Amino acid sequence: MLVDQQLLRIPGPTPIPPSVERAMIQPMIGHRGQECKDLIQKLQPGLQAVFGTKQDVFIIAGSGTAGLETAVVNATQPGDEVLVIVTGAFGDRFAKICDAFERKTHRLEVTYGEAVDVKEVKNYLEQHPSIKAVFATYCETSTAVLNPVKEIAEVVHQSSNALFIVDGVSCVAGVETKMDEWGIDVLVTGSQKAFMLPAGLTFVSASKRAWDVIDSNSQPRFYLDLKAYKKNLDNSSTPYTPAVSLLYGLEQVLELFNEEGLEQVYERHQLMMEMTRAACKALDLPLLTSDQAASPTVTAVQPTDFDPEQFRKVVKKKFGLTLAGGQQHLKGKIFRIGHMGYCSPADVFQYISLIELGLILVGKKIDLGKGVAAAQAVYLDREVETNDL
Amino acid sequence: MLVDQQLLRIPGPTPIPPSVERAMIQPMIGHRGQECKDLIQKLQPGLQAVFGTKQDVFIIAGSGTAGLETAVVNATQPGDEVLVIVTGAFGDRFAKICDAFERKTHRLEVTYGEAVDVKEVKNYLEQHPSIKAVFATYCETSTAVLNPVKEIAEVVHQSSNALFIVDGVSCVAGVETKMDEWGIDVLVTGSQKAFMLPAGLTFVSASKRAWDVIDSNSQPRFYLDLKAYKKNLDNSSTPYTPAVSLLYGLEQVLELFNEEGLEQVYERHQLMMEMTRAACKALDLPLLTSDQAASPTVTAVQPTDFDPEQFRKVVKKKFGLTLAGGQQHLKGKIFRIGHMGYCSPADVFQYISLIELGLILVGKKIDLGKGVAAAQAVYLDREVETNDL
Repeated sequence: MLVDQQLLRIPGPTPIPPSVERAMIQPMIGHRGQECKDLIQKLQPGLQAVFGTKQDVFIIAGSGTAGLETAVVNATQPGDEVLVIVTGAFGDRFAKICDAFERKTHRLEVTYGEAVDVKEVKNYLEQHPSIKAVFATYCETSTAVLNPVKEIAEVVHQSSNALFIVDGVSCVAGVETKMDEWGIDVLVTGSQKAFMLPAGLTFVSASKRAWDVIDSNSQPRFYLDLKAYKKNLDNSSTPYTPAVSLLYGLEQVLELFNEEGLEQVYERHQLMMEMTRAACKALDLPLLTSDQAASPTVTAVQPTDFDPEQFRKVVKKKFGLTLAGGQQHLKGKIFRIGHMGYCSPADVFQYISLIELGLILVGKKIDLGKGVAAAQAVYLDREVETNDL
Repeated sequence: MLVDQQLLRIPGPTPIPPSVERAMIQPMIGHRGQECKDLIQKLQPGLQAVFGTKQDVFIIAGSGTAGLETAVVNATQPGDEVLVIVTGAFGDRFAKICDAFERKTHRLEVTYGEAVDVKEVKNYLEQHPSIKAVFATYCETSTAVLNPVKEIAEVVHQSSNALFIVDGVSCVAGVETKMDEWGIDVLVTGSQKAFMLPAGLTFVSASKRAWDVIDSNSQPRFYLDLKAYKKNLDNSSTPYTPAVSLLYGLEQVLELFNEEGLEQVYERHQLMMEMTRAACKALDLPLLTSDQAASPTVTAVQPTDFDPEQFRKVVKKKFGLTLAGGQQHLKGKIFRIGHMGYCSPADVFQYISLIELGLILVGKKIDLGKGVAAAQAVYLDREVETNDL
């Protein structure tokens, strides 16, 4: 193993692009000066493009969970009935936050590894007309599932007057997201996933409908009060000290998105998912998630013939390749490969080669190179499709 | 292709390890202060270990060619007869420097792609007893050849009183080097190859025999006068302004060598060479160099059924993978893969996967994954050998 080489392939944090690292070591500036105002103002169009919204996108110093709490304490009120679609550990976290703030929390539990069936959401809402908000997880990081957020939004608005609140932490900026067009009322994401930044920022945006609730909400809140963020953003500022070096990094991330093109960013994630899944199938590695429900940002493997924890230790020790384990009742049962943010098809080939060797080292019988070849074939098919030769 | 991803696999400069990048952005210090003296002093033992010498290793701000010139203008005198073993472009450069300083330059020309036959060196020296210095290239970067420097040293000392002067630019710190034990009189290398630093430093060391010439040498010289470097190093200093940020980087590189262990560093390079060559053979890519003459730091491929320049363009455009082309009369006829410095077996799998795709894209018929599988098999053999499972 090469000293000082990290191959970080967990579903966030992801590696940081070199130009973003450089951007983050710019000299510190005063957070109330014009330079910082200019920076904050400059970030809005890029964030809005990623969110697919014309609304403000607020930047809060905090991790993704702070963003989830922001959604709960702003867009729902004490005693509200809310429905949380629980497809894994992060749906569960949304429900726990609702519980902590004493919402009347309904849970629509979905088998881990599956996406929610929108008909169930529809039925649930029709049976519970007093529900004021529906919470969903766009990419359920813990199971590598991408929930059909666009379709859920449709049935929520068809079947109820509830607000539709989405945790987009582990996929926004890696998959197409159209907050306004689809009818998402609150959208939350974090900096350390497809945004390719260190953890430390959460981004939150709210629809006009959501603002009606936020403005009149009696829920006690201070640090996470969106009204304060709104008032300050109107003056290109933040209510509390912003994490300036992360904002510099974000400025460069948005520049990279612009350079690559958001459509190409999304295509790259789709391609990396398809390559990874093809390789896993070729290597007889059972996937936790069906093709239809799979997320472009993370893949979960549920092996039956070796211990995933032992496997993770081997590839970490031998190659510095960090893969993620399972969470909650999937702990010890799956491993997860993150392929989002600063990750390319070249990196996919690298981790698949190493995964193949890791499989041999834990005693699984495979044909060397077979996973790589399957991923290469997917890559070539896409080359032909896009006539990009 | 991922914006901001460089896959730099030329035979130097190599990628820089992240901890070395961080080391190089330390605040600037005065180059005549105690801090800089401490730094210069601290670097000696690490450099001596890499060189395999107890002599001083001088650090000169300049590229490798400055180091080669340092060897010529210090260890040989105007009018001296010298023998230059020319196995490629860098042997040729050594000869040109000798010519520029009006040495009587004999050239022992070796077919490009082959290492020198030590018997020829022996014969030449026996026929030309007035030769005062023999110049050799340890790794001939242009052809990916590793010359048998230890054996050449032996015959030089057996057959003559000539000094033996070695260009170690593209392999020292990647292959074992024992300057004192083997009898190398002047050894030169650069910072941008197996030392994993940016270009900008050259390292030069001289034996006691060489110092006898250096001290009495009438050759006019100033910036590259080793007497000045010697006098200053005795006071932990340099005669002219040192490139301080590169010294900081070097401090960290030596720390990384220490952490990995020099023996392991050399084994890693040997392994990467074997993996790369096995992959090329599996993919029906003709190697310019025989197994016996191959360098652990670079591999040269001489394709017969596609244009290497077109191929290099494709992998650069599609994946950001930078491979090197040929030099001098090998221009347009070969491509070269650097696997030295900040490069791991994981990186070998990555570039082989991409090379396979590149081959398909330029129309070569190969079995996808076959090169990767061959490299994986080499890796596993070594695992079993070293009982490192």
